[in-house]
Amino acid sequence: MNILVINCGSSSLKFQLINSETEAVLAKGICERIGIDGSRIVYQPEGGQKIITESPMPDHTQAIKLVLDSLTDTETGVVKSLDEIGAVGHRLVHGGEKFASSTIITDEVIAAVTECNELAPLHNPANLIGIDACKKLMPTTPMVGVFDTAFHQTMPEEAFLYGIPYEYYKKYKIRRYGFHGTSHSYVSKRTAEILEKPYDQLKTIVCHLGNGASVCAVKNGKSVDTSMGLTPLQGVIMGTRSGDIDPAIMEYIAKKENLDIDGVMDVLNKKSGVLGLSEFTSDFRDLEDAVLAGREDAIRAMKVFAYSVAKYIGSYVAAMNGVDAIVFTAGLGENNKYVRTDICDYLGYLGIELNQEANAKRGMDIVISTPDSKTAVLVVPTNEELAIARETLALVK
Amino acid sequence: MNILVINCGSSSLKFQLINSETEAVLAKGICERIGIDGSRIVYQPEGGQKIITESPMPDHTQAIKLVLDSLTDTETGVVKSLDEIGAVGHRLVHGGEKFASSTIITDEVIAAVTECNELAPLHNPANLIGIDACKKLMPTTPMVGVFDTAFHQTMPEEAFLYGIPYEYYKKYKIRRYGFHGTSHSYVSKRTAEILEKPYDQLKTIVCHLGNGASVCAVKNGKSVDTSMGLTPLQGVIMGTRSGDIDPAIMEYIAKKENLDIDGVMDVLNKKSGVLGLSEFTSDFRDLEDAVLAGREDAIRAMKVFAYSVAKYIGSYVAAMNGVDAIVFTAGLGENNKYVRTDICDYLGYLGIELNQEANAKRGMDIVISTPDSKTAVLVVPTNEELAIARETLALVK
Repeated sequence: MNILVINCGSSSLKFQLINSETEAVLAKGICERIGIDGSRIVYQPEGGQKIITESPMPDHTQAIKLVLDSLTDTETGVVKSLDEIGAVGHRLVHGGEKFASSTIITDEVIAAVTECNELAPLHNPANLIGIDACKKLMPTTPMVGVFDTAFHQTMPEEAFLYGIPYEYYKKYKIRRYGFHGTSHSYVSKRTAEILEKPYDQLKTIVCHLGNGASVCAVKNGKSVDTSMGLTPLQGVIMGTRSGDIDPAIMEYIAKKENLDIDGVMDVLNKKSGVLGLSEFTSDFRDLEDAVLAGREDAIRAMKVFAYSVAKYIGSYVAAMNGVDAIVFTAGLGENNKYVRTDICDYLGYLGIELNQEANAKRGMDIVISTPDSKTAVLVVPTNEELAIARETLALVK
Repeated sequence: MNILVINCGSSSLKFQLINSETEAVLAKGICERIGIDGSRIVYQPEGGQKIITESPMPDHTQAIKLVLDSLTDTETGVVKSLDEIGAVGHRLVHGGEKFASSTIITDEVIAAVTECNELAPLHNPANLIGIDACKKLMPTTPMVGVFDTAFHQTMPEEAFLYGIPYEYYKKYKIRRYGFHGTSHSYVSKRTAEILEKPYDQLKTIVCHLGNGASVCAVKNGKSVDTSMGLTPLQGVIMGTRSGDIDPAIMEYIAKKENLDIDGVMDVLNKKSGVLGLSEFTSDFRDLEDAVLAGREDAIRAMKVFAYSVAKYIGSYVAAMNGVDAIVFTAGLGENNKYVRTDICDYLGYLGIELNQEANAKRGMDIVISTPDSKTAVLVVPTNEELAIARETLALVK
């Protein structure tokens, strides 16, 4: 079966068409600037060149229409008709406490996801627009929602409750939800396969380090804690997000900079993280180059970043009372050998020894610790689209 | 020499007169409701009964005068005249980046502390009023300021910088300062003595667990990280303070409860922590009783509390790449064997084994781990007044 995977943002839409038998990506692309001037679709069939087409996209329905036109195009398309698309898998950011796993999308599901909009005001409404657009154009094709939060619904109470009035949890559902769940689930399962250990008997810490970054403790196949919280702002320092701070800093910044809460939130979400610390970039590749060139501002940002990840790893070793494997994934986690080394330098007490030859490789599943290392360290490239396709297949076949 | 130790709050003033040779407490007490109706002084000479005297205290000068009158009283006093008080040691909450150690109080020091007022608006001005009152009544007696923050000034940049715009550190000095430094310093030094190990070669994690609570990583005699931050709000969950939260929760609470930033800060400082989670008390003794009685609300609060401390311990094991000793102190840390057990239950991976007979004892310096335990666990009652007296003596003798 061919499965169309859709990741729909407020003004962009990423897609992949995946053959569920071979798990090959038949085509992929992105629609950019939806609802804005200058919208365009980037489309790339398997083994082919990127085709960039500027085309008006006043709304997401038009964007989806262009995606389907591209996929079925007589020259560059990869399927003959929409009948060859067996299902659509939608990435959904926030399922609140309602969704502990992926689900076939029904009217009831749409209503329940809509109720979670308040928890993810930037993401969920956009995700729902994508579902609506697909329903219009492919009314009989089954659709599945795969939630970023679902994998973390196994967290115990002590991990998901904040030290705030309990009534806020009861009334407003303020609690830790965590994100990147599809990635943490995929990577931790893959780790068990690579190590040839039973997934339900393994203690794994997954470091999903990209522009957004989160760490997750996976014990016996279940997420037991994760660094992102009610929103993706909490946790380790990220590209532009602050991660953990003293809550009193918000009051301090508000008074000093004469900002209201929205203004402070904007600073913490968009002007903080390694961008704020380095004062020149949120791009970890630029930072890597600058660190190698000895720039102090970049070194400062990356030192704080590595330290914040190492502390989360340490705290999750305590949360699980031990660890078998530490895994790096996502853009930075997969590609920057220096940051992996800097983080593991804190973890000698776990008996970790890195194999620097393996650590220098890129783009593959690989164990980067030595055979003698008491805790295994791995790099496992994440593949959220494939994970969404698999979840979708499991529910529609 | 007799040293008067003063801990001056906005409407209260605690004092102890300590003989620096014997380290005996000659007298101690508290002035309550300064500047408010119904003020009173509670005074207790060594080995004697508490004497409670209601007396108007329109200001701190009058309170200090009553303290000095009590100490020199012909019947219940412990010294004949003020000449027998050789020095005064003042607890000062916030020394910013200006003070990395205790200091003789001069006009320049007062000016420098005043500049830190903004960082501790509730505490520093009250501390300074206490200094001013003492200067008026004992103008020739040397005075020393002992800062809660000073011990933590050895933290490296990666521990004290937040992931926020670096200019906020440069312009406003927004960074992690940490508190309870006098306690963390005293307890970590004492730990090295008890274990008969060199302080400058020991990795210790001190858990100061009282109504305010903080955890500190002390490596080779220096604080390298601590859980409180810019203010005492950050870190582990406390009696009424939230500790770490997703910063976005502030925005969420503000909108849901129709509060401004000050209103949210009030919730996080006074209505959160174990009070917020249990919904009935911030008193850890009440919680202990309720847990033993099987009350779910108390169990919930204490589970979240113990987990939050265990995670900090885990993160500091990573920060120091190992740990030799974990030490519990302050009201809860010294007196609640259950919470110590609950926390250590997470730490089996450190080779920790508790000696439950030792763990059940109270009121003494004691190693509570077994001889085979790979990491030592101790209870060391803190004594901030004695630590202040020692620091004072060291500077004036």
